[in-house]
Amino acid sequence: MSDRVVLAYSGGLDTSVAIPFLADKTGAEVIAVAVDVGQGGEDMEVIRKRALDCGAAEAVVVDAREEFARDFCVPALQANALYMDRYPLVSALSRPLIVKHLAAAAEQFGGTHVSHGCTGKGNDQVRFEAGLAALNPDLKVIAPARDYAWTRDKAIAFAEEKGLPIDVTKKSPYSIDQNLWGRAVETGFLEDIWNAPIEDVYDYTSDPTVPREADEVVITFAQGVPVALDGRALSPYEIIAELNRRAGAQGVGRLDMVEDRLVGIKSREVYEAPGAIALISAHMELENVTVERDLARFKRSVDQRWGELVYDGLWFSPLKNALDAFIADAQQHVSGDVRLVMHAGRAVVTGRRSDASLYDFSLATYDTGDAFDQSLAKGFVQLWSLPSKIAAARDARQG
Amino acid sequence: MSDRVVLAYSGGLDTSVAIPFLADKTGAEVIAVAVDVGQGGEDMEVIRKRALDCGAAEAVVVDAREEFARDFCVPALQANALYMDRYPLVSALSRPLIVKHLAAAAEQFGGTHVSHGCTGKGNDQVRFEAGLAALNPDLKVIAPARDYAWTRDKAIAFAEEKGLPIDVTKKSPYSIDQNLWGRAVETGFLEDIWNAPIEDVYDYTSDPTVPREADEVVITFAQGVPVALDGRALSPYEIIAELNRRAGAQGVGRLDMVEDRLVGIKSREVYEAPGAIALISAHMELENVTVERDLARFKRSVDQRWGELVYDGLWFSPLKNALDAFIADAQQHVSGDVRLVMHAGRAVVTGRRSDASLYDFSLATYDTGDAFDQSLAKGFVQLWSLPSKIAAARDARQG
Amino acid sequence: MSDRVVLAYSGGLDTSVAIPFLADKTGAEVIAVAVDVGQGGEDMEVIRKRALDCGAAEAVVVDAREEFARDFCVPALQANALYMDRYPLVSALSRPLIVKHLAAAAEQFGGTHVSHGCTGKGNDQVRFEAGLAALNPDLKVIAPARDYAWTRDKAIAFAEEKGLPIDVTKKSPYSIDQNLWGRAVETGFLEDIWNAPIEDVYDYTSDPTVPREADEVVITFAQGVPVALDGRALSPYEIIAELNRRAGAQGVGRLDMVEDRLVGIKSREVYEAPGAIALISAHMELENVTVERDLARFKRSVDQRWGELVYDGLWFSPLKNALDAFIADAQQHVSGDVRLVMHAGRAVVTGRRSDASLYDFSLATYDTGDAFDQSLAKGFVQLWSLPSKIAAARDARQG
Amino acid sequence: MSDRVVLAYSGGLDTSVAIPFLADKTGAEVIAVAVDVGQGGEDMEVIRKRALDCGAAEAVVVDAREEFARDFCVPALQANALYMDRYPLVSALSRPLIVKHLAAAAEQFGGTHVSHGCTGKGNDQVRFEAGLAALNPDLKVIAPARDYAWTRDKAIAFAEEKGLPIDVTKKSPYSIDQNLWGRAVETGFLEDIWNAPIEDVYDYTSDPTVPREADEVVITFAQGVPVALDGRALSPYEIIAELNRRAGAQGVGRLDMVEDRLVGIKSREVYEAPGAIALISAHMELENVTVERDLARFKRSVDQRWGELVYDGLWFSPLKNALDAFIADAQQHVSGDVRLVMHAGRAVVTGRRSDASLYDFSLATYDTGDAFDQSLAKGFVQLWSLPSKIAAARDARQG
Repeated sequence: MSDRVVLAYSGGLDTSVAIPFLADKTGAEVIAVAVDVGQGGEDMEVIRKRALDCGAAEAVVVDAREEFARDFCVPALQANALYMDRYPLVSALSRPLIVKHLAAAAEQFGGTHVSHGCTGKGNDQVRFEAGLAALNPDLKVIAPARDYAWTRDKAIAFAEEKGLPIDVTKKSPYSIDQNLWGRAVETGFLEDIWNAPIEDVYDYTSDPTVPREADEVVITFAQGVPVALDGRALSPYEIIAELNRRAGAQGVGRLDMVEDRLVGIKSREVYEAPGAIALISAHMELENVTVERDLARFKRSVDQRWGELVYDGLWFSPLKNALDAFIADAQQHVSGDVRLVMHAGRAVVTGRRSDASLYDFSLATYDTGDAFDQSLAKGFVQLWSLPSKIAAARDARQG
Repeated sequence: MSDRVVLAYSGGLDTSVAIPFLADKTGAEVIAVAVDVGQGGEDMEVIRKRALDCGAAEAVVVDAREEFARDFCVPALQANALYMDRYPLVSALSRPLIVKHLAAAAEQFGGTHVSHGCTGKGNDQVRFEAGLAALNPDLKVIAPARDYAWTRDKAIAFAEEKGLPIDVTKKSPYSIDQNLWGRAVETGFLEDIWNAPIEDVYDYTSDPTVPREADEVVITFAQGVPVALDGRALSPYEIIAELNRRAGAQGVGRLDMVEDRLVGIKSREVYEAPGAIALISAHMELENVTVERDLARFKRSVDQRWGELVYDGLWFSPLKNALDAFIADAQQHVSGDVRLVMHAGRAVVTGRRSDASLYDFSLATYDTGDAFDQSLAKGFVQLWSLPSKIAAARDARQG
Repeated sequence: MSDRVVLAYSGGLDTSVAIPFLADKTGAEVIAVAVDVGQGGEDMEVIRKRALDCGAAEAVVVDAREEFARDFCVPALQANALYMDRYPLVSALSRPLIVKHLAAAAEQFGGTHVSHGCTGKGNDQVRFEAGLAALNPDLKVIAPARDYAWTRDKAIAFAEEKGLPIDVTKKSPYSIDQNLWGRAVETGFLEDIWNAPIEDVYDYTSDPTVPREADEVVITFAQGVPVALDGRALSPYEIIAELNRRAGAQGVGRLDMVEDRLVGIKSREVYEAPGAIALISAHMELENVTVERDLARFKRSVDQRWGELVYDGLWFSPLKNALDAFIADAQQHVSGDVRLVMHAGRAVVTGRRSDASLYDFSLATYDTGDAFDQSLAKGFVQLWSLPSKIAAARDARQG
Repeated sequence: MSDRVVLAYSGGLDTSVAIPFLADKTGAEVIAVAVDVGQGGEDMEVIRKRALDCGAAEAVVVDAREEFARDFCVPALQANALYMDRYPLVSALSRPLIVKHLAAAAEQFGGTHVSHGCTGKGNDQVRFEAGLAALNPDLKVIAPARDYAWTRDKAIAFAEEKGLPIDVTKKSPYSIDQNLWGRAVETGFLEDIWNAPIEDVYDYTSDPTVPREADEVVITFAQGVPVALDGRALSPYEIIAELNRRAGAQGVGRLDMVEDRLVGIKSREVYEAPGAIALISAHMELENVTVERDLARFKRSVDQRWGELVYDGLWFSPLKNALDAFIADAQQHVSGDVRLVMHAGRAVVTGRRSDASLYDFSLATYDTGDAFDQSLAKGFVQLWSLPSKIAAARDARQG
């Protein structure tokens, strides 16, 4: 059997042109696979037909929105995943899901190669290829932009030469990636890191500086999974989508940062992640209420490592699995309600309640009902500080 | 020589009444020491006279505002110190400074005991006593609230009985501690963690929901120390104080959280820290630009541990010193400007520039001038993912 | 119903005398509970009768040897638990098991109090009381040595006065605790930390300096659990017991260290743990073969924290549970054989084989059959070192 | 000026043949640089002449033994650097030193390229090239074994063809690297990881199973630096060299392990490091005596990261520098004597004494002179375990 190339297909100019380009270059049939991870935009059926019109032997579209929410966004939420304390891993989460469907399509259609549109200086190439190495190490990878120095200008010329049914005139000045969990914008004038983003950069969020009424929402979690908004039971996908709308309308979730890429360079990134930031804010505070202190302290280092690993393309890795086991255990009691006020770019927790709460009014209060035995403190304080005290005496003695 | 008690004196009801109470209880002379850490309020000279009027043998006031900013707030800034990712350690920073001046006063005036007003269920008793254990382990500690169950009601009755020159009618419904780095509010209706804070709780910050003009500031850092605002060279104290005003006017720095106390309970805390939050936001982003990736990743765990240690009262400890050495090394190149827009409760970085920047336009750009050799990526990606790949093959083999 | 005190009973002088002492002091009936954790020594039935002879209302003996091996020693092995890189947590492991049986006896016999013989300066009081606080927070604790300054001399006088059936003449110069996982010796001349231990201190191990034949053993693990010795399937208890004999006969597992106690002081400890050290050596090397690099690196920090937590008395804690979940995941493929040579105090791995091995001869070899593509390395090396390179150029530029 | 290649020269077959090979291949002059890091073997002057005889334009030999001990081995000792808890970083320590002298020679002789003999599947290529990238990013690298698939067989044929003055008949079945800090052996029959090493593999150590008299030594440290043996003041180089002899004569320091290489594969390695293991054993115990508990606990994670970084070739990196600052601070009081008995493959600490000791007999003893106030313990234990207790009550409530 001859070679078949499974292509990660977006419907856009670059990957549409890649269909005949790959066929030319490799002599293989191209299987286009488009995955809906909540990126919005065109109808998936339109995208499927375009792939066929561009010469794909097969074209598959997958509605993976619920899967993405449940199996990728929720774990990130449980890990409070913010790379460099800021970035909620938007693209880093969708890549392993896309890889999974590419590998499945290769299995189904006899694919021998996989092709993606990533360049050689970004993180996504790593996420695609590390994922494929784990899921099916026999698949060979073709990355035209990196391996053949395939550029947008070449793609446009090629599209015109071949008469492909693609509009080559639309061009964003930015490089954009978006999905249910957020939206990433880079390049253009943002590459000067002293330049502020302009309103034009944003799409998921309204301008937070425009005066408007605040929006208040109560988010319910069960074992670290969001299960309801304002008392209405919803799926994780529905919750994230609704919060994208409501938090986005309040300008919540805009981020602007210089970021450490895995390939060793720093880059300027602007993100919008209204639903993600609202959910993470609520989840962190519910953990404050329901997770024991030592566990919470250690979990911060687990969360940080989880975010680094996923950012670094190692979703399908033994360490990721073991961190997931830790996090799953830690989520057992992260159940309850959080009230969040969203306004002017901020999502602020103003209340929390939980049957699994570790906040004990009778121990915390300074009013009537105080059950804390203050006489215990003296011994605690003295033994707690004893090692420092002995060391200080030594230091004084040693001069 | 007879015993002398050095009292941490605030000028308020509780510590004023403590002067005759301690004299009665111990037969010792009382030395009142009041330290100005930027808490505002009454004139320090008025406070000094009140101590003497209440019967203190000596009364000392110390203007420690510049010292507090330089030696306590700036290190916290360099550590991006946010306990539980939120709380900038307001009270935890002032306590070791106060302890230092208490120990100095004991040395100067022949003090044998030190007294503080902390209860037995808070963190501050630990910070006082752990600090004293390190600075002068021979000093004995008296904590009337904890050791003699001395309460506000008893204090008022005692004040009236003794005819002390104190207004006993003013009473805040909250327990408040404030200094240059921020303000902490607890107790009262906030002890029900479902209750939202009301505007009345706040003093350092204006209501962020009131529409107003944004304020833009450029903060200049030299080796991790803030040295100028909008190009005007200022001391750390002046910078923090100005940012408290300007960021506070925009409602920046309000925090509401459930917190893990060292004594083992969870408590509800509301904070305001406009200057601290503005500075930490700017500093973190300047680190993103000037600190190498691996160092930045490890520094997060150092920063977290630094915050825990200082929260836990171990400012004067060997581990704190060693973490400081790490952080000092990491701050060498954290120099440059950050532009911050403050508005509606948010302090947002919109630009950064630095001679020590590691952001390299020619490596980052996707435009003309790209100097990144993309051909290197293929080998990198393959070896980066090799361990996961081998493990995945093993897992597949093992079923 | 009147109070009943459940006493952790060893059969020795101190706890035997404690039976009438507690009855006198509290007016309560005493329930003596002796747990066999492999400490050897007297027959458990003899111990049971002695308790009754000393006045216990009930006396229970529990053979917990298999339970101790399976539920306490094996988890410690999987965590490679060595506190301060040395101490395999001998006493720290048995305490939570004993606590479990004390709480069960309190349930069964209507106990309202629990009593243990620990002093106020050791770790074991914490392990007992933290365990009880987790398992049954209503039980009150009596620790005569700590709470009533009850000493050995007082116990002897009391025993003679009461005519208790106990030999008061035997006295070890050391304080000893022992169980299946090892033996701890402290106090006496060892309190001078310049003094070397003498042969007399040891009981589980022969003198390693006496020339003898080496002993070779093949240990088989399945998912991190030892399941066979030299091909004979055995229970964890049987494996540890046999290795105690065989490794002990070779002088393996003697340890001499200054240790950081939880109560804030340093103490000198001498340990013998022949089986534990042999098993941990084998297990660590099997992990080297079967655990992926990043997972192995992170697991070291998990293992360290696990050891600290258990040492610090927090066996029954949320963080311990979550670390266990991580470790369980990491043990999935830790299966295979390790060959160990035991001789002259050392247990040395000389071979390892596993169906789950990640060692790949074809990638590792420099001989015929080399499957490693060296051309990948150049790109890897350059991107791996790129952040340091950019930083070095910056440092040079900045001078 | 034409190109000049600076070659890392060992005097052996491969690098000798590389001289004319590089000249042929590049048309450049070759500058041979041989660095004495205590590897023993031939006289450095003989090596220098051989380089010239093989056609080198310049040949430089550097006696870097004291520098290696002081600036590379001592920092590793202070970090207790044991990669994977076993390997004392023998080769990983010498590479950055060699790189430093290669860069200096390039500066001195106008070198434009640097050449090393490493393959593409080992760690040393990374250490060479990451070091060069940091010290002089303009130098280009040639690695004949990796870049031109240059093999030993080709080298022998080439040597014979060119009539080079080299003995091509000697051939070790192993690949060996050695220096003052230890010796590494790999390949050959050791690539079967079930095979035990044979006596023939070892050179720095005598067979530990041969009965002999034990050797006792007292090692004196000042601030973490070894400064004397048995009271004789010696340089770090002299101390390591003497301990290599004395510990080596007792068979101390043999290691056999499966190791995670940076390039993503596992390899079997056998090491001998008698002096390193003896010193690290002594240093760790002196830290136990002189370093405060919290600092010691955190330092373990710093030490682990330090070892990983240096193993991974990142000696010249910002994180390494910051970890060094932490470690330097932690070594301030690591001064005193450790008595070590070396025998039958073991180096065992039997005594320690230090003016900077934190071991306090009066707090530790159970005999007369006990100064520990046991009444403090009750409060400590209760607050220490309070978070677990509250969580356990919650868990019980939740079922």
